[in-house]
Amino acid sequence: MILSALLTSVGINFALCLLFFILYSVLRNRPSYADFYIPRLVAEGKFQEDDEFSVVKLLSSFKWVKRACQPSEEELLANSGLDAVVFMRIFTFGLKVFRFAGIVGICILLPFNYMGNQLNIDFTDLPNKSLESFSISNVDDGSNRLWIHFAAVYIFTAVVCYLLYYEYDYIASKRIAYFYSSKPRPGQFTVLVRSIPATSGRSFSESVESFFSEYYPSTYLSHSVVRRTSKLRGLVNEADKVYKRLVHVKSKKHPQQRFKRAGFMGLFGRKLTLLDHYEKKLEDVEGNVRTERSSIAGKEVPAAFVSFKSRFSAAIVSHVQQGVKPTEWITEQAPDPQDVYWPFFSASFIKRCARSYSFGSVGGLVTFSERHIKLKIVSQVITGYFPSLILEMFLSLVPPVMIVLSSIQGYIALSQIEKSACIKVLWFTIWNIFFANVLSGSALYRVDVFLEPKRIPELLAVAVPGQASFFIAYVVTSGWTKTFSSELFRLKRLFWSFLKGTLCWKSDEELEVPSNPYHSEIPRILFFSLLGMTYFFLAPLILPFLLVYYCLGYVIYRNQLLNVYAPKFETGGKFWPVVHDATNFSLILMHVIAIGIFGLKKVPLASSLTIPLPILTLIFNSYCRRRFRPSFKGYPAECLINKDRFDQSDPTISSFYDELATVYRDPAMKSVRYSEARESSSSPLLYGADK
Amino acid sequence: MILSALLTSVGINFALCLLFFILYSVLRNRPSYADFYIPRLVAEGKFQEDDEFSVVKLLSSFKWVKRACQPSEEELLANSGLDAVVFMRIFTFGLKVFRFAGIVGICILLPFNYMGNQLNIDFTDLPNKSLESFSISNVDDGSNRLWIHFAAVYIFTAVVCYLLYYEYDYIASKRIAYFYSSKPRPGQFTVLVRSIPATSGRSFSESVESFFSEYYPSTYLSHSVVRRTSKLRGLVNEADKVYKRLVHVKSKKHPQQRFKRAGFMGLFGRKLTLLDHYEKKLEDVEGNVRTERSSIAGKEVPAAFVSFKSRFSAAIVSHVQQGVKPTEWITEQAPDPQDVYWPFFSASFIKRCARSYSFGSVGGLVTFSERHIKLKIVSQVITGYFPSLILEMFLSLVPPVMIVLSSIQGYIALSQIEKSACIKVLWFTIWNIFFANVLSGSALYRVDVFLEPKRIPELLAVAVPGQASFFIAYVVTSGWTKTFSSELFRLKRLFWSFLKGTLCWKSDEELEVPSNPYHSEIPRILFFSLLGMTYFFLAPLILPFLLVYYCLGYVIYRNQLLNVYAPKFETGGKFWPVVHDATNFSLILMHVIAIGIFGLKKVPLASSLTIPLPILTLIFNSYCRRRFRPSFKGYPAECLINKDRFDQSDPTISSFYDELATVYRDPAMKSVRYSEARESSSSPLLYGADK
Repeated sequence: MILSALLTSVGINFALCLLFFILYSVLRNRPSYADFYIPRLVAEGKFQEDDEFSVVKLLSSFKWVKRACQPSEEELLANSGLDAVVFMRIFTFGLKVFRFAGIVGICILLPFNYMGNQLNIDFTDLPNKSLESFSISNVDDGSNRLWIHFAAVYIFTAVVCYLLYYEYDYIASKRIAYFYSSKPRPGQFTVLVRSIPATSGRSFSESVESFFSEYYPSTYLSHSVVRRTSKLRGLVNEADKVYKRLVHVKSKKHPQQRFKRAGFMGLFGRKLTLLDHYEKKLEDVEGNVRTERSSIAGKEVPAAFVSFKSRFSAAIVSHVQQGVKPTEWITEQAPDPQDVYWPFFSASFIKRCARSYSFGSVGGLVTFSERHIKLKIVSQVITGYFPSLILEMFLSLVPPVMIVLSSIQGYIALSQIEKSACIKVLWFTIWNIFFANVLSGSALYRVDVFLEPKRIPELLAVAVPGQASFFIAYVVTSGWTKTFSSELFRLKRLFWSFLKGTLCWKSDEELEVPSNPYHSEIPRILFFSLLGMTYFFLAPLILPFLLVYYCLGYVIYRNQLLNVYAPKFETGGKFWPVVHDATNFSLILMHVIAIGIFGLKKVPLASSLTIPLPILTLIFNSYCRRRFRPSFKGYPAECLINKDRFDQSDPTISSFYDELATVYRDPAMKSVRYSEARESSSSPLLYGADK
Repeated sequence: MILSALLTSVGINFALCLLFFILYSVLRNRPSYADFYIPRLVAEGKFQEDDEFSVVKLLSSFKWVKRACQPSEEELLANSGLDAVVFMRIFTFGLKVFRFAGIVGICILLPFNYMGNQLNIDFTDLPNKSLESFSISNVDDGSNRLWIHFAAVYIFTAVVCYLLYYEYDYIASKRIAYFYSSKPRPGQFTVLVRSIPATSGRSFSESVESFFSEYYPSTYLSHSVVRRTSKLRGLVNEADKVYKRLVHVKSKKHPQQRFKRAGFMGLFGRKLTLLDHYEKKLEDVEGNVRTERSSIAGKEVPAAFVSFKSRFSAAIVSHVQQGVKPTEWITEQAPDPQDVYWPFFSASFIKRCARSYSFGSVGGLVTFSERHIKLKIVSQVITGYFPSLILEMFLSLVPPVMIVLSSIQGYIALSQIEKSACIKVLWFTIWNIFFANVLSGSALYRVDVFLEPKRIPELLAVAVPGQASFFIAYVVTSGWTKTFSSELFRLKRLFWSFLKGTLCWKSDEELEVPSNPYHSEIPRILFFSLLGMTYFFLAPLILPFLLVYYCLGYVIYRNQLLNVYAPKFETGGKFWPVVHDATNFSLILMHVIAIGIFGLKKVPLASSLTIPLPILTLIFNSYCRRRFRPSFKGYPAECLINKDRFDQSDPTISSFYDELATVYRDPAMKSVRYSEARESSSSPLLYGADK
């Protein structure tokens, strides 16, 4: 790609970003769009409708940028939880890393690359200059200037490792501090017990009761056995649907729409009022729900949530093997009630086993590459913009698929599913965007090359620099424009809701506050960081674009976390280890490429001297794993005991204990009172907990 | 090897065994040999001296065989602990397996092998017939008879897996039962805490005291901080040596030997009584010991043994992360006091780290093969006997080397060192005897063949059957004769002590009761089981010899456990998982060879149908690992709590608590009162614990 093509692409994307920015700023305060752009504020009742229009207001509507940057980390923590803080730390970490990389890359490496003569390019025509002249490919073979690149690789690695250590340490301490400051949460006091042994003449509930009250008489509080509710859940969903239709029909203005015929496909037979029809159907379904609910007592699953009076006792039970047989009384710390993935328990054991074995590694199956879309009309616009757009559309399908895979893999909590999907999406992205693009371009894309590990650096060194221009364009399209269009402007959702509103009846849906889709966003951000790290010394021209991406991302995601997303669960920063490992992987990938490049460029000494670097990085990673990872698995005895003691003096703890007894109940078991709701159709659904 | 050579070898070895058996039976009751053959009984005072000689007594001296077989497993358990029972279970397990294999192999497979015509051997001259005619090599290529071998492999695998499961289950339940029946042991109540954080102005002892009395006020009992005692230990050893010399000089009858000159090399200078010389030296050393001991208080190591009032609290502390930093307050269940490997703590931290990284895999460095001793005079005796004798002598050096390697690897308990050495010796034996012999014979002995995993079965199938005769001879020499000579007759030790007695002064050493060297014996037994399993369908002729070995071993080791060895530590059967894994490895090795053999013999269908077998075995192994392994790591909460409750009603528990406070003290710190001992030189050394 030549420089002018890149500039065209940047120009188009910049214009698009500006467009989305202005549209968003103007629309966000319009009441009709409030549900899209500030659903969280609306749900929390913090949004005042004000339909007036004035120029002053229009100008002040850009102030959201300032408001997004203003809150301190503590305010964000209080508002959105530790996961949101950790999520934003990925951006600040990226900014720190690429600020340093940018200074080194643009001020030192880029001039040296440009001064090289390897590629013999004409110097007079700058706009038509290939981007390659800014990359390491332009440095002469065997030139001593490559030692500057060598030093840059070493220094950069040291800086990134220092920052990684500092960040891991900071987040680990934040995690403890957050634990100390948080209110008692049911998950902390509760253990999920599985594989409860079957005793003849005794229900699982009785077994659990007798086991824990015998061995933990002073700390055992209560338990609730899990029941198989897949059928009930289906019925409740059906009831919900019928109820929604009923409400919809009631709200219709034209009375003729309220009728349908009773016979075949509603075309023949006697007329019925739709109202009567749905009311009757709802009654039927409600009857079924009641029948199913009363019979559910017998459908016990050998699993139970067992609650204790203190966090430490729950931790003890989850850490120490309970029964004599290691395959019975399997314990683990329970997720919080809203985090439990209930369908897990309804699946049969063998199904679950089969699942956990079969979905070890998906990904690497689908590959997409630039090659496939080599159109005849190779205009500058298309080379700059089109490939990455198609790639982007295809990739937007990946996160939902991975969530499905992870959810059938046997996790019991939504947060675990999301973390697992996050890792899957990350490797899928790295494999299918980075490696597939890089290796397909070099016509050496064969899996069997990985059977000869010695050739990998050479292969990557040949292939990776050639894709620099593609990835610069990718940062601009996927990084800049997609963040603006899809994240800030929520284009897809807006389009979808518009389609729904015009084509079919618009239902009076409740306002739905989404949660941050960590599993799709974290891999995206990490992939940009991987690009930045690998191309840092190869083609430093990518760095300014990345820095812009990180700045934009920081502002936009902060805004979204404050205004759009409400936390669905709280893992206490468990996503950070994923970020740490991925960054280490990026570093090692950079080292491998550096080894290959220095070899190709005929500086074998530099190549050999780079070999210790990946080894040192691996040692650093294993040290960090030992030093920090246990802090992210559970909480230490010291903290648990201190926090427990603090709670003992809290007067509200007894009411919390009462709550614990009922809080782990399958949501399908909670009764819904449609009948009351039916009286006044405008009132929202009433979900009453039957305590 | 031809049949007559084998018979010669068997004859020689049988005669040797008989010789050792008779010698042992006659000598064992002679008072002068009692220290060698029944040291345990002597130490326990159960041996009555009776120097009379009569024919009746001579005849009755063979009764030890009966006496060795008589005690039930419960009596053995009470006498020698669970480890001894588990050790004997290896023999009973082997007997069960090879009884079945022997019946199938000799009655079914052997006739079919013999009826084959592949090797075209003359049928009339049986004594000069090659042993190959009894092996699978003699079966015709593509013959349907190979399906009998195929069925045998499947059935044998099923039987072995069933027996393995049954045995694992049995030993796991024995382990729990033994735990319930055992007296309180200090290791159960104690946790070893390492990496105690340094606080300024506070000793480690104070840190430990304040930490555990704050967080475990109701269960914390006492602690003892470990001190760096390498210098003190050296001094105490020196004092011991000087004291022994002193005692020896005093016991001398000739007064002229009691003098030596003070000057150069004892040749010049004034005469000194040796007695005065040693007494003065002893006083000096004792002074040094006292000085060192008083200064040792400052040499604290950041490690401590912390005792609790109940087993369950100790288990909790060892399972749950204690401090906020995962690298501080590292806890693990403490070994029993006599099991602690004290030198570990004196090594510096960095040294320990370096060690634990560097000794991951030793072994496979030294290889010994039959080839190296191809002498000119190839007599039948030499082919049958000599190679395995030399191999045996070389291999006797391996276990001590492995113990040294394991002890510098960073284990804190002698039992852990022995278990680790056991695994090392096992792999060393399998690699250096089995693979080196097999692959060197086939001239395909290159490590790079393992880079092509697909060729391994073929390679083994070519090489393994050819070594059948060597391994049959090996079973006879190493299995039969070595068990008799070295284990029962204790030839090496007898020879050594004889040498000592004639060449230099014989010291009045105390009677030393040895412990069973699990690390050298278990790998030997398991290696024979590996031979039996791999050759079961290749050359069933090995099986009768193996069965004889297992029978002999059963009687002899039982005798040794009852009369010779005293348990040095008690792991509660932790050696069994090693046996289980090794047996599974043997099975898989057999399957791999079977896959290769069926391919070579041109029955590709049988070869393909064997492929699921190793996979099924691996699944079985991973199931057993999940099902049983946790039981061998610690004890479940249920048992710990029950046993603790039982102890609460025991009146002796308070005295046990008192004992706990002092029991984890470095043995070098316990004072030795030489002065008292000096008064009456004939009295044994008095080691008084300074409680």
